[in-house]
Amino acid sequence: MPSITPGTVVIGQSGGPTAVINQTLIGVAKACLQRPETFTRVLGAVHGVNGIMKGEFIDFGAEDPANLEVVAGTPSSALKSVRRKASKEDCEQIFARFRENNVRAFFYIGGNDTAETTHIIDEMAKASGYDLACFHCPKTIDNDLRVTDHCPGYGSAAKFVAQAFMGDNLDNRSLSGIKVNIVMGRNAGWLTAAAALARILPQDGPHLIYCPEADFSLEAFCTDAEAVYRQLGRCVIAVSEGIHGPGGKEIIDAKEVDSHGNKQLSGSGALGDFLADTLKAHLAKVMPDKKHRVRADTFGYLQRCFPGVVSETDAREARLAGVAAVEAVLRGERSGSIAFKRLDNPYRIECFTTPLATVAKETKPMPRELINAAGNDIVADKLLPYLRPLVGDLPRIGRLAGTKG
Amino acid sequence: MPSITPGTVVIGQSGGPTAVINQTLIGVAKACLQRPETFTRVLGAVHGVNGIMKGEFIDFGAEDPANLEVVAGTPSSALKSVRRKASKEDCEQIFARFRENNVRAFFYIGGNDTAETTHIIDEMAKASGYDLACFHCPKTIDNDLRVTDHCPGYGSAAKFVAQAFMGDNLDNRSLSGIKVNIVMGRNAGWLTAAAALARILPQDGPHLIYCPEADFSLEAFCTDAEAVYRQLGRCVIAVSEGIHGPGGKEIIDAKEVDSHGNKQLSGSGALGDFLADTLKAHLAKVMPDKKHRVRADTFGYLQRCFPGVVSETDAREARLAGVAAVEAVLRGERSGSIAFKRLDNPYRIECFTTPLATVAKETKPMPRELINAAGNDIVADKLLPYLRPLVGDLPRIGRLAGTKG
Repeated sequence: MPSITPGTVVIGQSGGPTAVINQTLIGVAKACLQRPETFTRVLGAVHGVNGIMKGEFIDFGAEDPANLEVVAGTPSSALKSVRRKASKEDCEQIFARFRENNVRAFFYIGGNDTAETTHIIDEMAKASGYDLACFHCPKTIDNDLRVTDHCPGYGSAAKFVAQAFMGDNLDNRSLSGIKVNIVMGRNAGWLTAAAALARILPQDGPHLIYCPEADFSLEAFCTDAEAVYRQLGRCVIAVSEGIHGPGGKEIIDAKEVDSHGNKQLSGSGALGDFLADTLKAHLAKVMPDKKHRVRADTFGYLQRCFPGVVSETDAREARLAGVAAVEAVLRGERSGSIAFKRLDNPYRIECFTTPLATVAKETKPMPRELINAAGNDIVADKLLPYLRPLVGDLPRIGRLAGTKG
Repeated sequence: MPSITPGTVVIGQSGGPTAVINQTLIGVAKACLQRPETFTRVLGAVHGVNGIMKGEFIDFGAEDPANLEVVAGTPSSALKSVRRKASKEDCEQIFARFRENNVRAFFYIGGNDTAETTHIIDEMAKASGYDLACFHCPKTIDNDLRVTDHCPGYGSAAKFVAQAFMGDNLDNRSLSGIKVNIVMGRNAGWLTAAAALARILPQDGPHLIYCPEADFSLEAFCTDAEAVYRQLGRCVIAVSEGIHGPGGKEIIDAKEVDSHGNKQLSGSGALGDFLADTLKAHLAKVMPDKKHRVRADTFGYLQRCFPGVVSETDAREARLAGVAAVEAVLRGERSGSIAFKRLDNPYRIECFTTPLATVAKETKPMPRELINAAGNDIVADKLLPYLRPLVGDLPRIGRLAGTKG
């Protein structure tokens, strides 16, 4: 196998932050710093490709090694992030900087959009004969990257969602009524589905779970919620921000679109408020004899980088993904994306390299068979064994034996 | 001092749940179970006064003692809660049940409304010559009870808010733009003010904090945010759900509420969405040359009982408040509310009894002198020494030395 040309390494972070994205960053940086004969300088690009184009770099060799470990345990992108797909003009600027700094390895940490930019840069390097090792390290709370069994960042966000629903189920049990919680995930229901981990006793919420992989009907939503509410006197509902009707029909209009064409659903309470209002109107019609307490919360940005709510497995695997990318380059691999293969009994993972094209651009939804036929719940027997090892231990919940539910 | 007539104890929980309200419950229950000669039966009323009226009780003597400790560490009201002020007719039903069960001590855990109901029951017992010890144990995430230095439940909710802002500050640092976060607290800014604990470096958010104790002006809000955004390229803002204009004027008028469909402040994203939309429109006017990223999150119910985010001090003190109420009754006191006196160097508290009338009904806002003159920030030197011991340690945040801010 060809060995890598000695030179500078550039590491970047791109897309939305996660609780463990800096584990991957420090995994790459420390693994490179250990091989100074190959990686002569280890640079971090500030705000991803934007930093490369502007020549805004930090030098990992000048950082305090002990502080790097504190950074690894800190949520959000320590190098700061960017949402930018590299255009042809961007790439020309990028390669000008690469030449200036004799950059021979590029590691880009992010989701499918980040993999796409990495792929574009890799293709351009090959086309122009520029000698560059080019790797994508996975991260996304959405868990929607193709090929890999699961994504670094997902386990910690899933833990946050599970704990949030554990608390909210107890809150709803205490004061009754209907509660709708909107969970992140534009295209995939993985994070919303993690709400199911909050169920301990049979009557625990979430009682209904709506993922974007099943067509959403406002009418069915209302009758589903009404049925649970009539039976238990309460109802907790998990709804993905990405739900839509048949053929992708929007539930409400979303206006903003980012440079990748993603619509802005996060950072607004509109969907939750709309669903709560719709439910209130429905209950006022079908159960007019009493007042109904209906509330909605939109978990928002808290889900993706809440300090102190981190899955230990997720943190360890995120670190590993960074180290594995450097090891792949040292083995002579020239480009790819790091993916996880799951091995069971006991649960463990192996890292492998998959071509950038297999991860770039498109995402992987949750398989429809993990959702029930009615489209209002997950299939616990199939989903929970997949989820539990990624999230790890959850807080212990105690209930008085004399109380019901 | 007169000693208490032996008989049954009834314990209840009322109002919104907290992360540590069950510490107080188990504090009362276990202290009573240890004195069977005085407290012949220890009952919990399910859904507070509603449970008393319906005769829905659980028997703490029949509960597994080890499980009681797990319950103590579980958020939300284990006995389930209620929002109900006892009317004259309610009280007649309550006393009928008290007589039936030979109830001689009543402990009611909750906020100012709960203290008011406890006060009503106490007055009625005295007026009718019914021999009853009647105590209120404080709890509220709002920290707005009178007399006491601070309230059990506040420290843990403040810890959640602080951690949420720590993560959100890093998120905003990573992707820029303006972020508005709406924090609970209808009448008092204590919980919103706790966002200030997230500041570690000088450029950390929240950069602006708006509490209900200072009159809110939408115009000043826009120019404040614009100034920070022009200086730092980003801005994180903490806003209390209870903000209002001079004379209590609502921020969102009826028409705007209709377009969002909702008027209540908690369990709706209306205020946050309105503020974000207003900021967007302002920036489009004053900085029309580029697109601006403005987002809002409403922290909602997650703040009040998130499992796993608990202040150790808060948990310990909540337990103490329950035990202190039982000790007061054993000393011969007949009624009151437990309050905390703060002693410093090192920080510690002493419990004392204050008359129910001094805590019932009215709440205590944050003193205006803890807010700056402009009404857009807290006075850190005055507020943080009060706050820090209640919240305790926060997650450690690491940053790369080579990056700014």
